[in-house]
Amino acid sequence: MEELRTPAALLDLDRLERNASWMLQRAETLGVRLRPHVKTHKSVDVARLQTRGQFGGITVSTFAEADAFVRGGFRDITWAVPIPLSRIPDAGELAHRVERLQVLVDHALTVEALSTYARSHSMQFDVLLKIDCGNHRAGVNPASEDGPRLAQCIASSPELRFRGVLAHAGHAYDATTRAEVETVAEQERDVTVGFADRLRRAGIEVETVSIGSTPTMAVVQSLPGVTEIRPGNYALFDVFQATLGSCTLDDVALSVLTTVVGVYPDRNTFVVDAGALALSKDPGARQIDPDSGYGVVVVGGDRTKALPLRVRTVTQEHGVVVGLDRAHGVNVGTRMQILPNHSCLAAANFDAYSVIRKGKLVDRWALSRGWNI
Amino acid sequence: MEELRTPAALLDLDRLERNASWMLQRAETLGVRLRPHVKTHKSVDVARLQTRGQFGGITVSTFAEADAFVRGGFRDITWAVPIPLSRIPDAGELAHRVERLQVLVDHALTVEALSTYARSHSMQFDVLLKIDCGNHRAGVNPASEDGPRLAQCIASSPELRFRGVLAHAGHAYDATTRAEVETVAEQERDVTVGFADRLRRAGIEVETVSIGSTPTMAVVQSLPGVTEIRPGNYALFDVFQATLGSCTLDDVALSVLTTVVGVYPDRNTFVVDAGALALSKDPGARQIDPDSGYGVVVVGGDRTKALPLRVRTVTQEHGVVVGLDRAHGVNVGTRMQILPNHSCLAAANFDAYSVIRKGKLVDRWALSRGWNI
Repeated sequence: MEELRTPAALLDLDRLERNASWMLQRAETLGVRLRPHVKTHKSVDVARLQTRGQFGGITVSTFAEADAFVRGGFRDITWAVPIPLSRIPDAGELAHRVERLQVLVDHALTVEALSTYARSHSMQFDVLLKIDCGNHRAGVNPASEDGPRLAQCIASSPELRFRGVLAHAGHAYDATTRAEVETVAEQERDVTVGFADRLRRAGIEVETVSIGSTPTMAVVQSLPGVTEIRPGNYALFDVFQATLGSCTLDDVALSVLTTVVGVYPDRNTFVVDAGALALSKDPGARQIDPDSGYGVVVVGGDRTKALPLRVRTVTQEHGVVVGLDRAHGVNVGTRMQILPNHSCLAAANFDAYSVIRKGKLVDRWALSRGWNI
Repeated sequence: MEELRTPAALLDLDRLERNASWMLQRAETLGVRLRPHVKTHKSVDVARLQTRGQFGGITVSTFAEADAFVRGGFRDITWAVPIPLSRIPDAGELAHRVERLQVLVDHALTVEALSTYARSHSMQFDVLLKIDCGNHRAGVNPASEDGPRLAQCIASSPELRFRGVLAHAGHAYDATTRAEVETVAEQERDVTVGFADRLRRAGIEVETVSIGSTPTMAVVQSLPGVTEIRPGNYALFDVFQATLGSCTLDDVALSVLTTVVGVYPDRNTFVVDAGALALSKDPGARQIDPDSGYGVVVVGGDRTKALPLRVRTVTQEHGVVVGLDRAHGVNVGTRMQILPNHSCLAAANFDAYSVIRKGKLVDRWALSRGWNI
């Protein structure tokens, strides 16, 4: 640990294993398959822990992730963003390297382009239909006629296999109370299951009903009609999730190791070598904690203090922490860990994790960042 | 261009050359040396354009940048963050590979650690003293006794060469009007030059008086007493700088090429495959434009429209644009450019620039991201 240059992404193996087991247990209790989203950590080693004893399916968000995880031995992949037309050849090649690659669509032009490509390459695509369960990002409006029409169009195309429906309740991140997260979780489930039933009544076979985010899967009570869940963040957790109530600060497995480079008693601040790139500029759950800053500073390993220090401002390579008077023993050269607001964005700036167990460095795990290979 | 996978970082060579020439001209008019900060782009090729006909000095923020630029032929480097104690060995090794490496300090412990390392390695460090010109990030308070004491301590150490003083008016980014930027620029100059004079009166030789940011260097009228400036962002510019008045949107040389993956007429939105990683979550100059979103969408290449479209929300790999009704001809598969709020943070997520001239792809330039090599 002492030899590590800063900033470095530390991954605490005990916490990671505990988080992975917790969600495996959640999935078992809820009677669904767990297909973790690996965009959070982009690491095959982490995904192996998350899928232990499971069917092995994962969810990815980029071609770079898909490629790395196929090379890492994963054989059942859902690429869970509406596939860009220019990426269809990438998906076509990827499909030949795995047992199942499911692509996501929510528009007729994409369905047509997939069919055309598959026809000219004598192959078939496995297709999921994205529906909007209230998040209003991507997905067809489940109350409209577009959804069933698109599902029918996929199901009747000889080059496409309609596999089911997929939704993501990203609006859970806007909640201000746990009760609100629960309401969003029920909406995510009910809208998606209801839409699947609507398709079935129209004579369309729906194998997969896929939902999930870390906040909603942390609180949901039951999932009748759902076949799989796709949370991702829970492997690492972060300050955002702790503020939402999905976890505690003690569960956060990712931290950024940093060095104090300046102390300024007359401004009551100190500056660390982790800024907007190492921590991201994600503001966190400001709707709950307007004072959230850009990360929680762990001094001396104690995460349970009533008033943890926050990184107050970040610029590219500097983080400014207010509260030097409360950081006893901190001086130039002090090394400390910062829990990021949003692990997914913080991790993506590093090339590897420094894996620790009980404060000792035990391994180095690569992560597959970027988009192109 | 048509073959590029998205998201991709596009660098417009005509605009880049124009920006580089503009700041070279500014430096000549102002009678100072230009030592551009390369953290913005992290590209040796861009830095060569910025230093054409100059003495060749550059400014870096990380060891990864320093190493890459030394390998790229640069021989005069200022590492412009207070050097972390754990990086002193890196700096020591780097110093042997260049003609001049200047490190930055603002604390006695760092001065002591540099002396100790240098003594045991029979070398000398070139040292700049960081002062706080009103930004309140790093730097000694120029009105206190700490500054002269530290300068004296450096100047009298046989292992250190005191080279001068350095300041950065990062608070220019908080300005709400051009007049405010001008006030900050004058403060940056006057505080730094005044502090240098104070040291000289105390008998300390001050060779370098280094200031500069893109906003302050865009507006400052004269720089008597300043020897060099270190702006960086101007090479690429971005929406933040355009909002501050440092440039126009037409000057922004970096854009993110993206593909529309979904259109949602009933929500009046469309979704592109550039999100929080490709664009960063930098909110831009919200104090001037509360509605700034996360990037300006250029449809059809026209940047002069009165109401450019904005990316309204970003999640990891999705950007949501509101205003489908104003985006004529946009459909699934449409490719478009997005001007990021903050080029430095957006660029750092890519491994390379796709360099274009007059809409044609002409080159690919690597960038040196991350911290460790």
